[in-house]
Amino acid sequence: MDPRAAKILQRIEELARLSDEPGQLTRTYGSPAMRRANDLVGQWLRAVGLEPSVDAIGNLIGRSAATQPKRKTLLLGSHLDTVRNAGKFDGPLGVLLAIACVEECRAHVRELPFDLAVIGFADEEGVRFQTSYLGSRVVAGTFNAKDLGRQDAAGISLREAIGTFGGDPAKLSLARWPASNLVGYLEAHIEQGPVLEQNNLSVGIVTSISGQSRLRVEFTGRAGHAGTTPMNLRADALCAAAEFILAVEAHARKKPGLVATVGWIQAEPGVGNVIPGAATLTLDVRHQSDAKRLSAVAALHTIARKIARLRKIQLRWQPVQQTPSVHCSPPLTRLLAHAVRHREPRSLALASGAGHDAAVMAGLTPTAMLFIRCKNGLSHHPAESVKPADVAVALDVMIDFVRQLASHAETISP
Amino acid sequence: MDPRAAKILQRIEELARLSDEPGQLTRTYGSPAMRRANDLVGQWLRAVGLEPSVDAIGNLIGRSAATQPKRKTLLLGSHLDTVRNAGKFDGPLGVLLAIACVEECRAHVRELPFDLAVIGFADEEGVRFQTSYLGSRVVAGTFNAKDLGRQDAAGISLREAIGTFGGDPAKLSLARWPASNLVGYLEAHIEQGPVLEQNNLSVGIVTSISGQSRLRVEFTGRAGHAGTTPMNLRADALCAAAEFILAVEAHARKKPGLVATVGWIQAEPGVGNVIPGAATLTLDVRHQSDAKRLSAVAALHTIARKIARLRKIQLRWQPVQQTPSVHCSPPLTRLLAHAVRHREPRSLALASGAGHDAAVMAGLTPTAMLFIRCKNGLSHHPAESVKPADVAVALDVMIDFVRQLASHAETISP
Repeated sequence: MDPRAAKILQRIEELARLSDEPGQLTRTYGSPAMRRANDLVGQWLRAVGLEPSVDAIGNLIGRSAATQPKRKTLLLGSHLDTVRNAGKFDGPLGVLLAIACVEECRAHVRELPFDLAVIGFADEEGVRFQTSYLGSRVVAGTFNAKDLGRQDAAGISLREAIGTFGGDPAKLSLARWPASNLVGYLEAHIEQGPVLEQNNLSVGIVTSISGQSRLRVEFTGRAGHAGTTPMNLRADALCAAAEFILAVEAHARKKPGLVATVGWIQAEPGVGNVIPGAATLTLDVRHQSDAKRLSAVAALHTIARKIARLRKIQLRWQPVQQTPSVHCSPPLTRLLAHAVRHREPRSLALASGAGHDAAVMAGLTPTAMLFIRCKNGLSHHPAESVKPADVAVALDVMIDFVRQLASHAETISP
Repeated sequence: MDPRAAKILQRIEELARLSDEPGQLTRTYGSPAMRRANDLVGQWLRAVGLEPSVDAIGNLIGRSAATQPKRKTLLLGSHLDTVRNAGKFDGPLGVLLAIACVEECRAHVRELPFDLAVIGFADEEGVRFQTSYLGSRVVAGTFNAKDLGRQDAAGISLREAIGTFGGDPAKLSLARWPASNLVGYLEAHIEQGPVLEQNNLSVGIVTSISGQSRLRVEFTGRAGHAGTTPMNLRADALCAAAEFILAVEAHARKKPGLVATVGWIQAEPGVGNVIPGAATLTLDVRHQSDAKRLSAVAALHTIARKIARLRKIQLRWQPVQQTPSVHCSPPLTRLLAHAVRHREPRSLALASGAGHDAAVMAGLTPTAMLFIRCKNGLSHHPAESVKPADVAVALDVMIDFVRQLASHAETISP
């Protein structure tokens, strides 16, 4: 095994032992496990010559102690928090690759025209306060102060939690990084999907992070006795929902790059011998093109209306959330793709269907993102797994990227 | 309004006030409300010259005080218990029509060659002990002594509940009625479906009570991230379930008399941004012909297997319960149909898709059943409603039936 990858994977295991819950990995914002993670990763930062510090919300940052004035910084990183009962790689792998990249560059690359810094964001998953990207939103200056009033399941506010974690809720705006000090942001992350595995590739390039429409769709028909109501006199809301679910699948299959999912459904009254009088479901639609996503949502609305009309059933169509798509920096992405092509048969461009800190950071600074193949596309699950060889490829790509950027730095406009 | 119907409907209101729960009608086996119902209906029995008594499980029975030895009995009735948050008519209407029928026969029909008795069954719905027909199974001799160990939600066994209700769990077998003492059983009941209303008829004849197959069907695919898994790499269990639900509907629509219902469904993990890895649903299939019901279940199994195979999804097909169909007595049913044709434009023969005490009683004695139109086919709901004029028609039909039976009694073989 590549010794650099072996070291990263050993650290992945060490980090995975820092959990809020016994027997499984759960590391949420501001928890004791999160503090121990910051301490441990802080030691590793020091070992590569970076000075660890924690900002006002709790992001762990490693910077060169001896920096030259007016030098810009290339920020490398990902997040250190996890979902509940998480895999080990989602987040931490990107932070550990960043540290390894700095170590390799110090050893083998001379004279970078910018500083390298590493960041481990304190909250990307949003498990504790039900709102994601707390860490990167502070860095990018898009943190919403209203969120300070949010409470966790125990009734502790985010404001209190920041204080307990050693941060300062009054100084969040000061923790924003000035864009003018940055060259850009590079994040490595597991793909959390099966595309690289299907294409037999170790890594891929993220060109954009897809926008998302989330909706709640409700069909209301007429409940009735399952034994006494003939088929032709029914207004079965679940049958309408089933027709819609298949229409969603068929529509998304027809449109390249579109994904659409019904993940939750409920029939009411939900009893085996009663015809469902109501059926409610969630709809999740994503595409890297906002126009294509919105047009898909409109088309699905039309289909739902038609199903409801023909079945004499009521439709309630409720948009819940809309997030526009975010594009990675084309020049940084080209450099990253170039680095990938040195190491892989080809550079596969992917739209990330999942959200990432990179989507927030792209609002602050030119951002690039590297995906690493994960086993069976599985993520947010203890069985999350990454091959050592793929970790090594990702590391080499990142080092090449830094090298390339060093020789093109002046041509990259922020 | 017909004064006899008005009296029945006033009694319906009085009975509806006897509830285990404030603000809604819930009257379950052995409850204080059930005891008050037996007391109240007992007074009404006395008023028509019947002596009320309660058998070993708590069925209320009204018999002629002065009966001649060796005379057989025609038993009329239905049940006095209700579902939770029930309508007022399901059960009680049949008991009150039986009492009114006895009253009218005493006043206007002379010289019956059999006695008339009225029964109000103590448990048909099975709400408290999750097993239905406790009352009629005791009378018919098909009570299963194992059920005495069943517990209600508070941990009280049926054995204890029978004792508390003034019954005797040790004497249930003695409460069985000898078939040789019976001419037959006639039950009037609301249709609980929309067919009579659609056909603009007050009443209809039940020829059979449909058999039922209940199944649990489980599709297991592969969960995945809704944003990162392309449509062509999914194994969405809910899409398979949706395809099956539509196939169930289409199959039942094609087969006359078949009803098939998916009343409950669950997708797992059941989160908006996760592709369902599993989808479980209930399937309820009914037909008056057992052969046609079983052939429908087999056909739906084949369809489910095909859906699973084409989608590369696992199928688990679990039969939960099978009840064969029960046929009403053809000679009694012919007499009842004849009585209906005197009062209605035509006699419509219906298969009851719902279960009834009549289905249990048919195993003991020749049984006939009359359905009464209910508003919008609605039942098991506070809005359950019956027209006074339909109640009057039902009463007239029952009186005619008794009259007809009196002149044919010797030709009806048990």
